[in-house]
Amino acid sequence: MPSIDDYYPISCPFCKIAEAYPPEPSTPIPASPDPEKVDPQCHLLLSTPHVMAFLDILPIAPGHILVTTRQHYEKLSDLFPPTTADDWATRRTAAQARDSAKAIGEWLPVVSRALCKVTGIEDWNVVQNNGERAAQVVPHIHFHLIPRYQEGRRENAGKGKVDVGMLKSWRMFGRGAREDLDEEEGAEMAGLLREAMREEVEGEKKAKL
Amino acid sequence: MPSIDDYYPISCPFCKIAEAYPPEPSTPIPASPDPEKVDPQCHLLLSTPHVMAFLDILPIAPGHILVTTRQHYEKLSDLFPPTTADDWATRRTAAQARDSAKAIGEWLPVVSRALCKVTGIEDWNVVQNNGERAAQVVPHIHFHLIPRYQEGRRENAGKGKVDVGMLKSWRMFGRGAREDLDEEEGAEMAGLLREAMREEVEGEKKAKL
Repeated sequence: MPSIDDYYPISCPFCKIAEAYPPEPSTPIPASPDPEKVDPQCHLLLSTPHVMAFLDILPIAPGHILVTTRQHYEKLSDLFPPTTADDWATRRTAAQARDSAKAIGEWLPVVSRALCKVTGIEDWNVVQNNGERAAQVVPHIHFHLIPRYQEGRRENAGKGKVDVGMLKSWRMFGRGAREDLDEEEGAEMAGLLREAMREEVEGEKKAKL
Repeated sequence: MPSIDDYYPISCPFCKIAEAYPPEPSTPIPASPDPEKVDPQCHLLLSTPHVMAFLDILPIAPGHILVTTRQHYEKLSDLFPPTTADDWATRRTAAQARDSAKAIGEWLPVVSRALCKVTGIEDWNVVQNNGERAAQVVPHIHFHLIPRYQEGRRENAGKGKVDVGMLKSWRMFGRGAREDLDEEEGAEMAGLLREAMREEVEGEKKAKL
């Protein structure tokens, strides 16, 4: 029997964001959402019935984005709850999870394109951690999009080649060394990202007409 | 103008796997695919018109799985090719990319559930690298599923906490230290994973009847 907290886990920071920024019926990309609706500030990029995207408040690199489900699921495996129960509510729950999974798949490429366009990067990592041993901090499914800038690169030729920039940032999932997102920089970056995403989505719409 | 290689990049190892194991019309999970159809061996887990899953041949940990698109796309951003062109072929290409993106989203949770069931782990990472600077080795979209076993864990309390097991494996994306998958172990693991995935998918089918 699920508890009331499963439906309304208000202590979850991403659920607070979901509550503060409901999906807009007209567009998946909010025009100019107020970052102060939640504390700490949220620089929102995307808000649909199934997914959201916003800037990480402890960025590993400028433009570090999180893509999350709107509903509260802890781990990726929770997006496929197979069930032999035949009641309507259980089926609806399973269908919603499945829709969230597809929506994550569908939006990751769009957000990635906007990220490349705005930051000028061509290389980036997508990382999704499940559980404490895998460095998950917030227990609500989220995919990190982490840009890899050229200047951070060092080449170690030969066997056992290691990308030092990458190593450094992996270590930073532990949080100790990450710096808070600067509010002004965040607002500017988020504005540019929303604009780029809007262009991607509008371009697609035009093509369908 | 795309070259013929864009359509048939036979030097790509994942395209070779796609060619050797076409999707079966009856089931997404092949019954007992012959690993020797390609060289090096492939322990196939999933084969649909849009996605495939198989064991990594240089596992970071036992049960390290790759989930890939069937079609050849280099980076995640290639799964959203917006176009203002109105010819049929271009639109079909864009629709196929979109379907691949959704299918990846849909199958990652199913493969994750099977991985947890077979290995007994509760924690795992999903990592998808785009570009050389992000440690991408094969230029064909793939998501790593990396189990985090309890025994590899060390706790560093306090500030700047680092998961050592995680650090070690991130470094291993550079390849130097990873060991080849043992063929017998691979075959056994793949058999168990296919069985677990079949149970997940069948359970879901039954619920829909």
